[in-house]
Amino acid sequence: MIAQSAFPVEPWAVRETRLDLELLAQSESLFALSNGHIGLRANLDEGEPHGIPGSYLVGFYELRPLPYAENSYANPESSQSIVNVTNGKLIRLLVDDEPFDVRYGKVHSHERVLDLRAGTLTRTVEWSSPAGKRVRVTSIRLVSFTQRAVAAIRYQVEALDDPVRLVVQSELVANEEVPALSNDPREAAAMEHPLAAVDQTTTDHSVVLVHRTKRSGLQMAAAMAHEVIENGSAEVVREVHVAPDWGRVSAVCSLQPGERLRVVKYLGYGWSRVRSPQALRDQTAGAVTAAMTTGFDGLCEEQRQYLDDFWDAADVEIEGDDEIQQAVRFGLFHVLQAGARAEGRGIPAKGLTGPGYDGHTFWDTDSFVLPVLTYTRPEAAAYALRWRHTTLGKALQRAETLGFRGAAFPWRTIHGEECSGYWPAGTAAVHVTADIANAFDRYTLVTGDDSVECDGGLELLVETARFWMSLGHFGCDDKWHVSGITGPDEYTALVDDNVFTNLAAAHNLVAAAAAARRHPKLARHLGVRDKEIAQWSAAADAVFVPYDPRRRIHEQNTGFTMLPEWDFEASRDKYPLMLHAPYFDIYRKQVIKQADLELAMVMFGHHFTADDKARNVDYYEPRTVRDSSLSACVQAVICAEIGHLELAHDYAYEAALIDLQDLHHNSRDGLHMASLAGAWVALVFGFGGLRDTDGELSLDPQLPSEISRLRFTIRWRGLRLGVDISHDETTYTLRDGPDATLTFRHADDPVEIDTAAPVTLPVKKRTATLPRPQQPPGREPMSRSR
Amino acid sequence: MIAQSAFPVEPWAVRETRLDLELLAQSESLFALSNGHIGLRANLDEGEPHGIPGSYLVGFYELRPLPYAENSYANPESSQSIVNVTNGKLIRLLVDDEPFDVRYGKVHSHERVLDLRAGTLTRTVEWSSPAGKRVRVTSIRLVSFTQRAVAAIRYQVEALDDPVRLVVQSELVANEEVPALSNDPREAAAMEHPLAAVDQTTTDHSVVLVHRTKRSGLQMAAAMAHEVIENGSAEVVREVHVAPDWGRVSAVCSLQPGERLRVVKYLGYGWSRVRSPQALRDQTAGAVTAAMTTGFDGLCEEQRQYLDDFWDAADVEIEGDDEIQQAVRFGLFHVLQAGARAEGRGIPAKGLTGPGYDGHTFWDTDSFVLPVLTYTRPEAAAYALRWRHTTLGKALQRAETLGFRGAAFPWRTIHGEECSGYWPAGTAAVHVTADIANAFDRYTLVTGDDSVECDGGLELLVETARFWMSLGHFGCDDKWHVSGITGPDEYTALVDDNVFTNLAAAHNLVAAAAAARRHPKLARHLGVRDKEIAQWSAAADAVFVPYDPRRRIHEQNTGFTMLPEWDFEASRDKYPLMLHAPYFDIYRKQVIKQADLELAMVMFGHHFTADDKARNVDYYEPRTVRDSSLSACVQAVICAEIGHLELAHDYAYEAALIDLQDLHHNSRDGLHMASLAGAWVALVFGFGGLRDTDGELSLDPQLPSEISRLRFTIRWRGLRLGVDISHDETTYTLRDGPDATLTFRHADDPVEIDTAAPVTLPVKKRTATLPRPQQPPGREPMSRSR
Repeated sequence: MIAQSAFPVEPWAVRETRLDLELLAQSESLFALSNGHIGLRANLDEGEPHGIPGSYLVGFYELRPLPYAENSYANPESSQSIVNVTNGKLIRLLVDDEPFDVRYGKVHSHERVLDLRAGTLTRTVEWSSPAGKRVRVTSIRLVSFTQRAVAAIRYQVEALDDPVRLVVQSELVANEEVPALSNDPREAAAMEHPLAAVDQTTTDHSVVLVHRTKRSGLQMAAAMAHEVIENGSAEVVREVHVAPDWGRVSAVCSLQPGERLRVVKYLGYGWSRVRSPQALRDQTAGAVTAAMTTGFDGLCEEQRQYLDDFWDAADVEIEGDDEIQQAVRFGLFHVLQAGARAEGRGIPAKGLTGPGYDGHTFWDTDSFVLPVLTYTRPEAAAYALRWRHTTLGKALQRAETLGFRGAAFPWRTIHGEECSGYWPAGTAAVHVTADIANAFDRYTLVTGDDSVECDGGLELLVETARFWMSLGHFGCDDKWHVSGITGPDEYTALVDDNVFTNLAAAHNLVAAAAAARRHPKLARHLGVRDKEIAQWSAAADAVFVPYDPRRRIHEQNTGFTMLPEWDFEASRDKYPLMLHAPYFDIYRKQVIKQADLELAMVMFGHHFTADDKARNVDYYEPRTVRDSSLSACVQAVICAEIGHLELAHDYAYEAALIDLQDLHHNSRDGLHMASLAGAWVALVFGFGGLRDTDGELSLDPQLPSEISRLRFTIRWRGLRLGVDISHDETTYTLRDGPDATLTFRHADDPVEIDTAAPVTLPVKKRTATLPRPQQPPGREPMSRSR
Repeated sequence: MIAQSAFPVEPWAVRETRLDLELLAQSESLFALSNGHIGLRANLDEGEPHGIPGSYLVGFYELRPLPYAENSYANPESSQSIVNVTNGKLIRLLVDDEPFDVRYGKVHSHERVLDLRAGTLTRTVEWSSPAGKRVRVTSIRLVSFTQRAVAAIRYQVEALDDPVRLVVQSELVANEEVPALSNDPREAAAMEHPLAAVDQTTTDHSVVLVHRTKRSGLQMAAAMAHEVIENGSAEVVREVHVAPDWGRVSAVCSLQPGERLRVVKYLGYGWSRVRSPQALRDQTAGAVTAAMTTGFDGLCEEQRQYLDDFWDAADVEIEGDDEIQQAVRFGLFHVLQAGARAEGRGIPAKGLTGPGYDGHTFWDTDSFVLPVLTYTRPEAAAYALRWRHTTLGKALQRAETLGFRGAAFPWRTIHGEECSGYWPAGTAAVHVTADIANAFDRYTLVTGDDSVECDGGLELLVETARFWMSLGHFGCDDKWHVSGITGPDEYTALVDDNVFTNLAAAHNLVAAAAAARRHPKLARHLGVRDKEIAQWSAAADAVFVPYDPRRRIHEQNTGFTMLPEWDFEASRDKYPLMLHAPYFDIYRKQVIKQADLELAMVMFGHHFTADDKARNVDYYEPRTVRDSSLSACVQAVICAEIGHLELAHDYAYEAALIDLQDLHHNSRDGLHMASLAGAWVALVFGFGGLRDTDGELSLDPQLPSEISRLRFTIRWRGLRLGVDISHDETTYTLRDGPDATLTFRHADDPVEIDTAAPVTLPVKKRTATLPRPQQPPGREPMSRSR
């Protein structure tokens, strides 16, 4: 855990004022920069000390064999692991004869600032070498949102008290040693030396290294070029070295006190499965040349403009909880970084902030990250959806291998193939297929843009619907069932009729039917006939939702409420449970890792009455241990809906602070994008009461006592709708287009708004019908009500 | 498959009259010799060609790491694999300059005979070398039942047409190359060079090699000594060589036509975890010395006496089906070989006939092999039970690791630790714990010998009962449930209230309660109080047995009959299914690998009415694919009980012929002990109608049309009861003790018999109430009714 005081609470920045080497790996994740294509962990410029060195290119992976103690049919033979690519961040410094290394000499001051509006990471250190020479090092780093292949660092050294001789060595290093990760199955597999050198080229100030992964056969190039500016009397001497895994440009000069040496390093990255090494070399060198033309200040200016545009329609303002204010912006910034320029690649569960989960994309993206992007940065959502469509062929193959029709999407992947080596929690978690399809449906609904649907989305909806029809079946009760699958709750597996899965599948079927009707010609081209559409609708209409009439609650899956209870008291200090108990025992008891039925009530709320929701929360909260980062935000939303607003506030805080406080003890491996997105979800779906799954926009705002005001903007069909909530009323403002109007629901009542004037409506207060539910002992969220 | 005609039908032997190199591996298993301590595959004396070289010592294993693509808590880190130990069978022959190898020169005749009464394997070959020199080689091999550490070979070469110079090289070879096994998960993992040399000693005619396994640290010794007898004029010159992995004694002589060289090779084997290499060396050398004193003829005589005694009380005679007659004796012989002298070690699923299943012991032994041994060779059953008790400590540890009280026995093991690397079909198959406990209960019931119960058996019953009490729970229906487990059917996993498991657990609880009441002092010593016994009884009385009232059948587990149906038509040529479909799809459908509810009806028949049984068979037969060798014999028994006698005959044939016809295509890896035992079960429990699970002996004989007479003997409480069944009547004969009487049931009626006179009673004919059930297309058993 990171102490609450580690980062001062500021609205638009995360600031570190003390270098704690114990938390180095966590800070490398928190301060990571990315544009969705390139990701650079916040390793110190000089490379050492480090927690986990990390430079990543989205979609660039190595194959890793998956072993099985007892193999069985259709187990994936290999996984894909994100590769720590050639490190271009490295700038070493010698002060006289001694390397700048914070473990030696004396650090007089240290500050790092992640500026959420500038999109830069600034570091300022004052350091004396062991020989007593004092320098101030200031570096500013960015990964450009506007120039996708480019990152840049402005590195400045100032002599303070004495004359110094400086050597600045700017490097590219491939195949860095990566520390062995622990035995925790959640962590990525370490891969040693995955890159084989292909080509090296140099000029007097630049180096390009081209490498190829050994098993997956992907090629990448990293280029660096430099500008060196000295403001003093010194002459700068340069030198360039290159080797297969390594390139170095050195600058040597002497400074008098008060003089500065400034080096601007431009980095270009690219990778390809098909392009030649020469083409890759030229492409990255070209990116660097373009960036140099823009200049470092120009890159910073573009960066700020890009972010101004983002924040204009995405910002969330909170009065009454400054920590959440900071955290939700931090989260939105990282969600943007993860998706902004992914363009045809998936958004990994940890973005490009670390090697956790092998760099895989899960349903986290479709169900947690994409709702945020769809409402705030729809073009980034579209990129991620189009990537999913590029993997449809592999999903069709996978379904065929498994014995089904249509498309079965993977539990975890980088390139589209199933990479899960434990099928009961991977292949069996079929809801991922509906989650993906429903993300397409939501995109079309929210944006009004049907280009994604026409350009592959319909095909994906049709093929996923076909999958559900071959997986589900009509029972002798004439209900439509889905048997033998695993729902979102990873502490329950291989069950019948998981409510979330059944409703997600039904939604998938309904969405496919509607899309096919919207595009009859395209649908016919895909072989869809009226009869097939009618079958989809019939299955969705007959979907079975298990209910326990004795307790008057829904069963998470058939038979769930008949299972033995977990002994939570005995597990008080044994979380996450999966590290202390076998799945054998966990699966067979009423213990829930993450919101499952609660998620169903959030996503498909119209299938439940208000009383059902209240009783269900009352039953499931004491059995939900939140060992997954996908839980707190969902619990925030459903608790807000049923009037447990203070509890919702506590959960929202947990979702938002997950990484800033390292609540899951694994932020070192990368940030939890779904939970960071979930902070927005908790506020906007929770306290804003936003819903869309029944096909229209509705809001039903209400704030917890400690939050006095919540303002946010959402994009709906090309318009920006501002929502400004206080305890008593909500003001809606419509922007964009002089004549636009928008119809939506406010607390169940229809509202029409135009751009001429805001509309202010009273908050319709909801009060909880049941007492605040308990959580398992030791798993209560931190309380925000003082 | 092996053609039906490969082995002529003979009552007391299996004879091979042609050497088919394609079937070499299968014949090595079929003709394997063992006494339960030493196992020698029927590799040709000269070592090559071979299918799978194999010499085994029961319980002697090497550790093999178990890898996991995604590890989780309590997965076993390593497995135990049976080791191909030092090969002492090897006798090479040079005829003039040319090695005797059936792939060269010309084989004029070949015969191997496994004599089921002599307990020997005899091989006779007439062979001409490529140079045209003709010899007759005759070898007789035995693994002694009476001298546990001893095997012996009498190897004789006769010159036929020309004078020949012979070199006979008798060897010990450690770390033989073992062929790579296929990817089939059922096959054993190949382990290369598991043995490290420790010590070698020689005399002028003997060699002892001592080795140690590299990871498990077990030590073994193999000794050979020789007698050389020539009947002609030739002088025999001897030579001894030794190396760390290899020892050789050579005999050189020249023979005139008609002259013979005869070499008798005595082998001694031993292993230990704790004894010194010197002690092991001396122990095996001593065994060889003792065997030489007995002499080869003496060993043969002891062997026949031992078998005479066995057959006297174990033989089954059949009139009307000569193939089953041969096969059931073949099966009994191998079951005896597997268990006769195991003495403190487990009986592996394949005995010591091959490396299949890594040499592990499964529930096959407790539920299929031990019933046969308990009724025919109780001391061998006692050995196996006492071995289980020696592993109780590990079962207690395993239960604690899993979070339970009491003892959880492993799915597969050699030394007691769980060796299954796929927990849904391993650890979750908790019925194994009840199967083991119930085997203790049966032993005490059938033999009347309470020494096993007093000497650990009670402790095992108590600790397994405690396991069930911590695993099962009372639901809100006041019934006792067992959730989230896997029953016998390996095509259905992680279910609630599997009928077999629930009834087996209830039986375990009842047996523990009864045993504790029988031995109150011992029970108190184990901490058992009346209250605990009452809890066991209460749970057993309240055991939940799921029933589908709509179909009026029992559900194999809760919800089973609601699952989708399997498309059997599409799978017609895709067996075993697990090699063609993922467990994901198999588990979620109504497809059954092996008798499960049918086994429950056989084992715990008093829980079912006759009508239930008939309807259940009618429902489950068309869904049971028999991809397991544990199925046909059970189906035979239940089908016989409900009057489908011809179908029972077909199943009995399949169980009996499983290896002689290689019906599962994997007899090369070793024989299926459970199915071979199952042939006896099919006949005695099936057509004899033997039952014992409700605590008393009952028989209810009835024969299928093609079998005119069935005679067998069972041991019951020290007495031998002969049963002689014809279509119309059954004659019971009691032996042993002048004044003995026995009460049992015949067709539900009480019968009292004494040794004075046989009792003849009419067969009470049962007729099927429903039509003969169908099996999945392509999975019908071969028909025996012509």
